[in-house]
Amino acid sequence: MRILVLHGPNLNLLGTREPSIYGSTTLAEINEELVRRGASLGAQVDTHQTNIEGELVTHIQNAAARYDAIVMNPGAYTHTSVAIRDALGGSGIPAIEVHLSNIHAREPFRHTSLTAANCVGQILGFGPQSYYLGLDAAVSHVKGLRPNE
Amino acid sequence: MRILVLHGPNLNLLGTREPSIYGSTTLAEINEELVRRGASLGAQVDTHQTNIEGELVTHIQNAAARYDAIVMNPGAYTHTSVAIRDALGGSGIPAIEVHLSNIHAREPFRHTSLTAANCVGQILGFGPQSYYLGLDAAVSHVKGLRPNE
Amino acid sequence: MRILVLHGPNLNLLGTREPSIYGSTTLAEINEELVRRGASLGAQVDTHQTNIEGELVTHIQNAAARYDAIVMNPGAYTHTSVAIRDALGGSGIPAIEVHLSNIHAREPFRHTSLTAANCVGQILGFGPQSYYLGLDAAVSHVKGLRPNE
Amino acid sequence: MRILVLHGPNLNLLGTREPSIYGSTTLAEINEELVRRGASLGAQVDTHQTNIEGELVTHIQNAAARYDAIVMNPGAYTHTSVAIRDALGGSGIPAIEVHLSNIHAREPFRHTSLTAANCVGQILGFGPQSYYLGLDAAVSHVKGLRPNE
Amino acid sequence: MRILVLHGPNLNLLGTREPSIYGSTTLAEINEELVRRGASLGAQVDTHQTNIEGELVTHIQNAAARYDAIVMNPGAYTHTSVAIRDALGGSGIPAIEVHLSNIHAREPFRHTSLTAANCVGQILGFGPQSYYLGLDAAVSHVKGLRPNE
Amino acid sequence: MRILVLHGPNLNLLGTREPSIYGSTTLAEINEELVRRGASLGAQVDTHQTNIEGELVTHIQNAAARYDAIVMNPGAYTHTSVAIRDALGGSGIPAIEVHLSNIHAREPFRHTSLTAANCVGQILGFGPQSYYLGLDAAVSHVKGLRPNE
Amino acid sequence: MRILVLHGPNLNLLGTREPSIYGSTTLAEINEELVRRGASLGAQVDTHQTNIEGELVTHIQNAAARYDAIVMNPGAYTHTSVAIRDALGGSGIPAIEVHLSNIHAREPFRHTSLTAANCVGQILGFGPQSYYLGLDAAVSHVKGLRPNE
Amino acid sequence: MRILVLHGPNLNLLGTREPSIYGSTTLAEINEELVRRGASLGAQVDTHQTNIEGELVTHIQNAAARYDAIVMNPGAYTHTSVAIRDALGGSGIPAIEVHLSNIHAREPFRHTSLTAANCVGQILGFGPQSYYLGLDAAVSHVKGLRPNE
Amino acid sequence: MRILVLHGPNLNLLGTREPSIYGSTTLAEINEELVRRGASLGAQVDTHQTNIEGELVTHIQNAAARYDAIVMNPGAYTHTSVAIRDALGGSGIPAIEVHLSNIHAREPFRHTSLTAANCVGQILGFGPQSYYLGLDAAVSHVKGLRPNE
Amino acid sequence: MRILVLHGPNLNLLGTREPSIYGSTTLAEINEELVRRGASLGAQVDTHQTNIEGELVTHIQNAAARYDAIVMNPGAYTHTSVAIRDALGGSGIPAIEVHLSNIHAREPFRHTSLTAANCVGQILGFGPQSYYLGLDAAVSHVKGLRPNE
Amino acid sequence: MRILVLHGPNLNLLGTREPSIYGSTTLAEINEELVRRGASLGAQVDTHQTNIEGELVTHIQNAAARYDAIVMNPGAYTHTSVAIRDALGGSGIPAIEVHLSNIHAREPFRHTSLTAANCVGQILGFGPQSYYLGLDAAVSHVKGLRPNE
Amino acid sequence: MRILVLHGPNLNLLGTREPSIYGSTTLAEINEELVRRGASLGAQVDTHQTNIEGELVTHIQNAAARYDAIVMNPGAYTHTSVAIRDALGGSGIPAIEVHLSNIHAREPFRHTSLTAANCVGQILGFGPQSYYLGLDAAVSHVKGLRPNE
Repeated sequence: MRILVLHGPNLNLLGTREPSIYGSTTLAEINEELVRRGASLGAQVDTHQTNIEGELVTHIQNAAARYDAIVMNPGAYTHTSVAIRDALGGSGIPAIEVHLSNIHAREPFRHTSLTAANCVGQILGFGPQSYYLGLDAAVSHVKGLRPNE
Repeated sequence: MRILVLHGPNLNLLGTREPSIYGSTTLAEINEELVRRGASLGAQVDTHQTNIEGELVTHIQNAAARYDAIVMNPGAYTHTSVAIRDALGGSGIPAIEVHLSNIHAREPFRHTSLTAANCVGQILGFGPQSYYLGLDAAVSHVKGLRPNE
Repeated sequence: MRILVLHGPNLNLLGTREPSIYGSTTLAEINEELVRRGASLGAQVDTHQTNIEGELVTHIQNAAARYDAIVMNPGAYTHTSVAIRDALGGSGIPAIEVHLSNIHAREPFRHTSLTAANCVGQILGFGPQSYYLGLDAAVSHVKGLRPNE
Repeated sequence: MRILVLHGPNLNLLGTREPSIYGSTTLAEINEELVRRGASLGAQVDTHQTNIEGELVTHIQNAAARYDAIVMNPGAYTHTSVAIRDALGGSGIPAIEVHLSNIHAREPFRHTSLTAANCVGQILGFGPQSYYLGLDAAVSHVKGLRPNE
Repeated sequence: MRILVLHGPNLNLLGTREPSIYGSTTLAEINEELVRRGASLGAQVDTHQTNIEGELVTHIQNAAARYDAIVMNPGAYTHTSVAIRDALGGSGIPAIEVHLSNIHAREPFRHTSLTAANCVGQILGFGPQSYYLGLDAAVSHVKGLRPNE
Repeated sequence: MRILVLHGPNLNLLGTREPSIYGSTTLAEINEELVRRGASLGAQVDTHQTNIEGELVTHIQNAAARYDAIVMNPGAYTHTSVAIRDALGGSGIPAIEVHLSNIHAREPFRHTSLTAANCVGQILGFGPQSYYLGLDAAVSHVKGLRPNE
Repeated sequence: MRILVLHGPNLNLLGTREPSIYGSTTLAEINEELVRRGASLGAQVDTHQTNIEGELVTHIQNAAARYDAIVMNPGAYTHTSVAIRDALGGSGIPAIEVHLSNIHAREPFRHTSLTAANCVGQILGFGPQSYYLGLDAAVSHVKGLRPNE
Repeated sequence: MRILVLHGPNLNLLGTREPSIYGSTTLAEINEELVRRGASLGAQVDTHQTNIEGELVTHIQNAAARYDAIVMNPGAYTHTSVAIRDALGGSGIPAIEVHLSNIHAREPFRHTSLTAANCVGQILGFGPQSYYLGLDAAVSHVKGLRPNE
Repeated sequence: MRILVLHGPNLNLLGTREPSIYGSTTLAEINEELVRRGASLGAQVDTHQTNIEGELVTHIQNAAARYDAIVMNPGAYTHTSVAIRDALGGSGIPAIEVHLSNIHAREPFRHTSLTAANCVGQILGFGPQSYYLGLDAAVSHVKGLRPNE
Repeated sequence: MRILVLHGPNLNLLGTREPSIYGSTTLAEINEELVRRGASLGAQVDTHQTNIEGELVTHIQNAAARYDAIVMNPGAYTHTSVAIRDALGGSGIPAIEVHLSNIHAREPFRHTSLTAANCVGQILGFGPQSYYLGLDAAVSHVKGLRPNE
Repeated sequence: MRILVLHGPNLNLLGTREPSIYGSTTLAEINEELVRRGASLGAQVDTHQTNIEGELVTHIQNAAARYDAIVMNPGAYTHTSVAIRDALGGSGIPAIEVHLSNIHAREPFRHTSLTAANCVGQILGFGPQSYYLGLDAAVSHVKGLRPNE
Repeated sequence: MRILVLHGPNLNLLGTREPSIYGSTTLAEINEELVRRGASLGAQVDTHQTNIEGELVTHIQNAAARYDAIVMNPGAYTHTSVAIRDALGGSGIPAIEVHLSNIHAREPFRHTSLTAANCVGQILGFGPQSYYLGLDAAVSHVKGLRPNE
């Protein structure tokens, strides 16, 4: 089983700036934990970060041929990108949207998600745990543990 | 560690109606799995279902003295209840909101959550797995595995 | 054939207050007429009133096993209750929404109905006659007089 | 007693197109049933269909001198016609609005009615039965069976 | 000088219905006064009433070749007709919009005018006087008494 | 008969600036014409201009004891002033709102009037003629030429 | 004179949680002060708290036969309950709405009140004093100290 | 193959008024070119223009029995007519919507189309070429050149 | 203790106009009662009325140096004045907003208050009693009777 | 004559995924047909696809020096990109917007186009034919066949 | 060269209240610096402050004859005043809008400016520096340093 | 001191296209002037332009380690980019937003800025001077000339 984890804009800064808000865990540490946790679940995990909306689109498109599922934090593009929504809809690969913070407790323009409609589900508010729970959910989903939704 | 799982309106019908949409797992089966999974994580899990908004408010209020965390599916009240939002805000007990279906892929009035703003986080779209992931998140949260968000 | 008639909030006051607006017919008199009219149509009619949204949800859920159709006046909850809408959608029992007054000639927030989308049809504006026409429609619907809509 | 039944735009196609949606009953059959049912209730029923908004206005105006009540399906003009609303308000003749389909379960722009505010009441969602119930309601209304709303 | 006065939907009922609201002056009396007043101002006045939106469009189109100005009460179409707006914009003939009642003191959907943007000006609220003032304004406009606005 | 003409903000600039838009007639010339025209109609006309919203309120209040009617161009306050609306509603003196330009052909925020709802009527788009027609309407109104609207 | 004081959802927590926000006065202490203050004003004060919307409706309905006025803090239901609004409108008993906090300085969805429209008046922002001022106002209102508003 | 070309309100003025905006080509010339171009493509083209919304509805209804496709410029009714939308949806005949001007570069109320949702496609902004391209598209569509969209 | 009472636009008319709506008590009588009631509470009360928004701003600014609290009825400026809101926010003096009528039972644009967010609290709907209750609240507030909100 | 065809995000997937929705024609096949059709019309056609919004901006900018017109399917960026709109407005090169599907029959956020306002025209709903008709329109436009719009 | 600096409502309080927010610089100190800086740039600077909207209108009108440019902080009227917008539009004198705080980081109703549309430009967020930069911009503008925008 | 100047989409076209709108100054000339002016203020100025949103995000992120402040014209992304807003918020480097044109005098969708909320301030409308004033403001800000805002 292969899982792709995609990090959207500004997530490369994680852990190095504003630790009082986003915590002191770096993106590298999260990625390491995802690889380790994936291995223990029988899944190879690859990770990628980009600030460019269109590159997220391309990664989603390419993932369909190589991966069983995507765990993605679209960051700020969550609220504005029809292109990512369409890539998710067109790729045919199951995706799980995660967010570090509780977007419903922030500015109103963060309360809605254009991208989640084309995902299996969404997990948000648990800091780095959002990614780990998302990986668990992705593995379960691929294993067919959820036959009827 | 004690965790209260609250089920809102219409969730008592789970598994007995519209299995093509909501699956064939009953609420009793979900509750059993939650108790079992809780035990394996070192947490006693109690569950309760009610169709009445004000009773959810009362359960949240009372939980503060007896439980370490709440996992709650507010169902239809997610989108309309300021009273539950206030109970969550006033109770001081950490809560995790879960939904069986992907609310962002349904009618527009289900895309927003009044209650999530006063929760730690939100998990949705994974069918019964949403509850199980929510329980995992609750236990992790109580154990302090997420010191910095 | 068995029909359940559900009356929502404040309808217990009918006929005893503001007769210039709502008429002098009491809810008891309407219920009596419904039972009588039902009998003449070959249907047993039961009636229930409650001010509590969640109790209406429960009555709708329970009706599925015991009744062939519901005639319901959700009163004020018509405009705000996703929970009743979901109960109607999930119960699988055909329901007919009725209103005493013409809600389109009142305040703007009464011009829309959240609950009607999950009913067979809606009848409004005829005072107690709205209930009687609703009962006729329910009986016809159960008898299959409307095979193709 | 004389009742005018007015059919708005596209209703002439009834029964000949899209029977899976609108049923196989033709407008002629509905009209025949209305005349028959009217006769049994002691009312002469005349019917008219037009696709032109302004002709509906004229029919409503003229009805005041010749009819006791109108049963009208304004079709698509329900949602856009201030002119029909004004004709109903100015004509002084009681009118009852009917719809074949449940407009609250269709596109959002069909959820509101400009014309219903100037009608006695509204009946919708019962297919051809909507017309028959509307005729019953009209006859009752003219006979004064609803003195206090 | 020739002036065309156009009356929109429902204005043919004027004076015969709801005199407490619209006064007891009939449309015929208004037309007579307009012809008399026009004569005294050196203008031949023709009048026409129709309930059909598209006929108003045609009258406006045809007026360009035969009249110097239009005085028009679009009635209910004021608030909904892009077609009349376009006819006014395309005809090249100056038009003056009049209303009997003060539309700003009525329902919110009557507070805006789609048609006025393509008129020289608008006069409303003075009952039949609105027409007479509109005729005065039309004659002045044609005579060039308002060279610079 | 005494008529007060009130000019709101920026109307003192009339005729001296932007003649291509507002014409070359000055406010003084308009006032002279209003006095002359008033005299010929048997009415004494006084005029006043101020840029201050609250002073317009005071003028309207004081007018009730000394004048039979007001002709007012509230200028920019038309679209924003609840205070002037209230003064008009509370003063009991009939008022007529006039505008030089066609506000419906300008920016969207000029398409609505808060103040017109408490006036007898509104005249707009005729340049200085708007004032003269407004004066005619005021005199007619006071003389009781419009008994039934 | 008898006054009923109704407390809505979450107000039972008062004084025991979040004292930095809501103060350290408990609901019991407020109730005691209301009874004492009522006695000094010649009024018997009864109090009741519930988290359930429909129970507030029932209490309001029942109050009409036993009390002279209601002082009510509808809490979160202030902003969402048409049912309480209708109960207030139908009960015929004068009611006064009170809030501990200044709802206009909180989230936008708290700036409007559905229930206040059917109350005599509203008092908010003074903490427990809001209740005491509300009681004063209720007693004055019953004594007829406000004959003309 | 037979194609019906329908022209909506005000299009009869084409080429005779405002040539700087709409060009100097008349509707007759466009119709001639459509017939000629149709012939070269093996299609008989009939054309019709009307200013009346309901007549467009009737033409669409009747076209189903006699034509293979419709090319229609609904003009101003594009933005307001649910009746034409319903006629297109109910007629079962493929239709192509065309506009002379680029409606997205005009007033905001012209940016949306109620009618396009029930057409195969839409072509706009190319002046008379919009019609010719629309005819090409209609012929291709009927010939089945677009089996999979 | 010194309290300033500020009356906004149109309140000078109180008692002399529309007594059926606003009662027959004049502003002078209210002011006298406020002075008398203030004296009995140990507070010197000064009063001022103005129709000019900017003068209310200036009075609020100046009050900070001379008064302990403000009781203010901003009248129509309640709904439109950011300037008064800012003056209240910047002055540092506690203020209490009062209204004679129940603004929630009037036009929708009166249901919101821009100014209340920067006041301690708001009292409305009790006629002149709104002022007297506001004075009581102001005195209590200054005496520190509300330590914890 | 040289024409640039630009394909926006996700169009590279065309024909390989979801053939039931988007057809089985690949983007390569469309490009081949465009080149062939261009040659027959005397135009050299170059094509380019990118998922990145900013690269579309750059391609539009560069096209001005090398091409006579652009045929562009902005895909998802149609509804969100002010940057592409500005590039079209600033480049001075005529552009034609095309869409495979009928965007008016899809989700509401696809009903509007930010980019079309700065194009000559728009063609949508015809599958690959949209591109071919767009190329025809581009060639005609460059050849000056549309002198007056 | 002569420059008028206008300060709107509440700016007279600057430096004396809430120094943590607005800084400790007084308006007098800002005015002194503006005069000094103006002198060094060859411009005579006059300053004026008023809380009254209409007086700002008058100052703008009068400035046209005596000054070369205006630097204005409209304060709260920025968001509500059509009258100031019109004065700026009608005066013909170039104006530059400045704000001390970053209005885009404050409440939503401060994010838009009615007045800026009729200014040359806007400078905000730099505290007193906003005024100084505004003066620099005004002098440059008058000197013609910006011939082509 | 080091300052980074970032130019967003389409600004590379400056001076070469539409000189009547944007002036004839090229971006290269602006950059030269910025470097020269920076040198005279003791600051090294680097400049960069890109059409890609995500590259602006990356430049802002990287600037934090190498520059003291950013002067940025986000161009079209001003109105749509949450990603740039977040980069500004997360980077910790002070930024100043500039625009060549007065965005408040253009289309409504340009009147708001998502990015300005996370900037120190905003300067707009002065053509190339907007950049130069922005550089002055940046240097002043870094030098600490604005201790109290």
